[in-house]
Order: sequence, then structure tokens, then C-alpha cells
Amino acid sequence: MSVAGQMLETYPKDLGGVDREKLLACIEACFECAQSCTACADACLSEDTVAELTKCVRTNLDCADQCDTTGRVLSRHTGYDANLTRAILEACEQACKTCADECEAHASMHEHCRVCGEMCRRCQRACRELIDSL
Amino acid sequence: MSVAGQMLETYPKDLGGVDREKLLACIEACFECAQSCTACADACLSEDTVAELTKCVRTNLDCADQCDTTGRVLSRHTGYDANLTRAILEACEQACKTCADECEAHASMHEHCRVCGEMCRRCQRACRELIDSL
Amino acid sequence: MSVAGQMLETYPKDLGGVDREKLLACIEACFECAQSCTACADACLSEDTVAELTKCVRTNLDCADQCDTTGRVLSRHTGYDANLTRAILEACEQACKTCADECEAHASMHEHCRVCGEMCRRCQRACRELIDSL
Amino acid sequence: MSVAGQMLETYPKDLGGVDREKLLACIEACFECAQSCTACADACLSEDTVAELTKCVRTNLDCADQCDTTGRVLSRHTGYDANLTRAILEACEQACKTCADECEAHASMHEHCRVCGEMCRRCQRACRELIDSL
Repeated sequence: MSVAGQMLETYPKDLGGVDREKLLACIEACFECAQSCTACADACLSEDTVAELTKCVRTNLDCADQCDTTGRVLSRHTGYDANLTRAILEACEQACKTCADECEAHASMHEHCRVCGEMCRRCQRACRELIDSL
Repeated sequence: MSVAGQMLETYPKDLGGVDREKLLACIEACFECAQSCTACADACLSEDTVAELTKCVRTNLDCADQCDTTGRVLSRHTGYDANLTRAILEACEQACKTCADECEAHASMHEHCRVCGEMCRRCQRACRELIDSL
Repeated sequence: MSVAGQMLETYPKDLGGVDREKLLACIEACFECAQSCTACADACLSEDTVAELTKCVRTNLDCADQCDTTGRVLSRHTGYDANLTRAILEACEQACKTCADECEAHASMHEHCRVCGEMCRRCQRACRELIDSL
Repeated sequence: MSVAGQMLETYPKDLGGVDREKLLACIEACFECAQSCTACADACLSEDTVAELTKCVRTNLDCADQCDTTGRVLSRHTGYDANLTRAILEACEQACKTCADECEAHASMHEHCRVCGEMCRRCQRACRELIDSL
């Protein structure tokens, strides 16, 4: 089991009615997506055609930041607030959608955009599935 | 002028039709609120009654993270995406509201909760005013 | 291969003489450790004995923040600066050591501290091995 | 008094022998510098000569992340650990120095680099003064 999965298992109080599988999938996707977007922004910077990739860099940076925050919020269970969780998941779903759209537009030219676009799409779906299960 | 204000002034391209005053107020509120929530979480930890403040700690940590992300996203203007900006501002408004409600419940007992609750309420309003101006 | 591994593979320029295996291990450990420390801080908050765990919460929060920053810095390769990389890795090694020491002190009582302490120790070693390979 | 100053004043326990003025100056500099570096990275992205500014973008992103972490760590006082504080301040001093050097190299061409370079230099000094006072 992943470390994130073990941390979820060892939480000492009740997790309420949350779907553990969807929660864990979303936590893991958020941290992976924060990493891939950080790396994709940097890879875009190193391309000779960086001037055509500035929107991609920016969207990657936004998505990395929102995924980071979402992964942290979802890793906390004490004093759960459904309104906050939902609002943050919706922001993250949007950040991932925007970034996936942008990365996919460059996927045929740049492998890092292809890999990162797929990661963003996966994280977008994980957010949506968790929202729908709340 | 604050450093954040100078950075906004020296952005080399057009900022579009954004309300600069509301944008700057929101950027500054987000960074100040990230700091005050980080400090309030820690101050709660040091109280003898920490066991009664665990929800306040958690809400402060969430609010600090979301304000941090929002302050960063608002500090970027390249490749502006209105849907993303709006979704992140709405998440931040909610995080600030949740945290202000929680801090205010302890404001008569703990000065740090009073100061932080006021900061969260101010940041909540700054987010709302910026959303309404978009 | 992990997404982080794929992002490293698809970086379009030369990575210099870096040890790719140690770099990837350290990137992955930093993101996993940021997650586990965020979760352990929250799990400590939910313990009935939270008043005895406040130093553990604080150390977890510091370690989560420094691991997050280190994971991001290591995910960037453009305009590499050895002095900066080394200083940030040394701060992260120290943050992980401090947190591992603290978590281990509670490991026999709290499973989340045991899991998180092991993760911190692993991240501490990954930082040291990467520093030594620079 | 700033909100950060009020939060320091309302911390309920003893702050130990720390120099409050230097601590507050460093906390405020870290948050301001995190903002200015985030904005400078974005301003560089929007320059027509972005291809010559990629190292500046990268250094700004690293400095923003490390300043953010340092500002958070310094905002916590519970369970103070001198070794950790020192290591993180040294990493931050180095990040600010690297970024100030880079921004200053472009200061005559780009006003945002001039403003941000001055901010980084100020934060670098605030870190050093706090280290020397520990």
C-alpha cells in the first residue's frame, strides 16, 4: 500500500461516510499532478519555442499550486467541512481541466505536455468522482 | 506603494479590463491571510485548551493553503483564464468564510483568533469584490 | 514508470551530470513526505492526547512545507544552480531529521507517527544521497 | 501595526529570547518576496525576450517557494527547534541571493526585475540578520 494509503488507514478517528477509495485516488492524483505540472512548466521553459508556450507555463504553475492545496486539504479529516471541501475540489477540477486543455494542444509536439496533459485529465476526473460521491 | 503594487505597475503587457485596485487589494489580502492563518493555527496549538481548538487549527491550515494559492494565481497575468480565476476565487472566498466563522467563535477567548478572524473576513470580502468586478 | 519518472525522461534538454536515479528517488520522497506529514499533523490533532503532540504537529507542518518546496525545486532543471540546490537539500534533510526524531518518539503509541517517521527517515536519506552525488 | 505584527503580539506563550523586531521583519520580507518573485516570473514570461529570461523565471519560482516555506516556519513558535530554523533560513538566504543576482542582471532592461531584485536583496539581509541574532 502507498504511504498515503497507510496514512489514511492509520487515521485514529472515524472518517465519516467518505468513499475511501475515491478519496485516496484523489489525494494521490493531486500530489502527482502538482509534481508533473511543476516539471512541465520547467520543460516548456527549456524549449527553443518557449515564446509559444508561455500560456502553458502559466497554466501549469496555477494547476501545480491548486493541486498542492487540494492534496493537503484532502489529507486532513479533523473538523471536516463539506462546503469547503466541495469548493476546493471544484477549483481543482477547473485548474486541471484548463491545464489539460492547454497541454493537450502541445502534446503532439512535446512529450512532456502529453504526459502532463494525461495526468491533469486523470486528476480532473478524480476530483469530479470525489465531488459526486460526497 | 507596496512591493505588490509596484510589481503590478511594472507588468509589461496590458492587464485587460481588470479593476487594478480590487486586484491589488485581493493579492495583498491573500498573502496577509495566509500568514495570519499559519500563525493562528500555531497559536491555537500553544493554548492549554488546544483540545477544544482542533477544528480551528485545521480550518486555519486549509485557509492558509488556499489563500497562498489564490495570491499566487492572482499575481500572474500571462494567458489569463477567467474560468480558472473565478473558480479559485470562489474556493478562497469559501475557505475564508469557513475560517472566519470558526475564529470568531473563539475571538472573545483568544486575541489571535480575533485578529485572524478579522483578517479572514477582510480577505473573504476582497475575493467577493474581485469576483463581482470580473 | 511513475509520472515523475516520465517527466524526467521527457525533459527536452541535457540534465547535466546528475544521478537520475537519486534525483528521481528524492523528488518522489519529497512529495510523499509532504503528504504524510500533512496527514500526520492532522491525525495528531484528532488524538485525545493532542496536548502532548503539539510539537509533533508543528514539526510535521514545517517538514511538509520544506519537502514541498524541495520537491518543486528538484523538479526544475532549467538554469540549474548548484549552491541553491545544495542549500535547499540541506534544509530538507534537517527538516526530515527533526520530524523523524519527533515522530519516532510517538511511534509506539500512534501508528500514523510510525508510518510518517519512516517516511521522513527515507526522505532524509534520499536528500543526503543526492547531496553526496552532486 | 501590521497583521503579522499583531499575530506575533497575541501569541499566548513566551517567544523565548528571539529578537522580535528581526523576526517580524523577516516574516514580512518572506511573504512579500514570495509575492514579488511569483509576479516577476510571470512578468518575464510576458516579455518578448522571454527566451533570454528563462533562468530568471526558474530562479524566481524557486525563491518564491523557499520564501513561502520560510515565512510559514517563522510564523510558528510552538516546539521551536533551532537547528531547523537555522537550516531553513540559510536555504532562504541562498535562494534570495541567487534570485537577486539574476534579477539585478536584468534590472536595467526590466523594471519588474529591478523591483524584485531589490526585494530579494532585502529578504536575503533579513534572513542573515535573523540568523546572526539566534
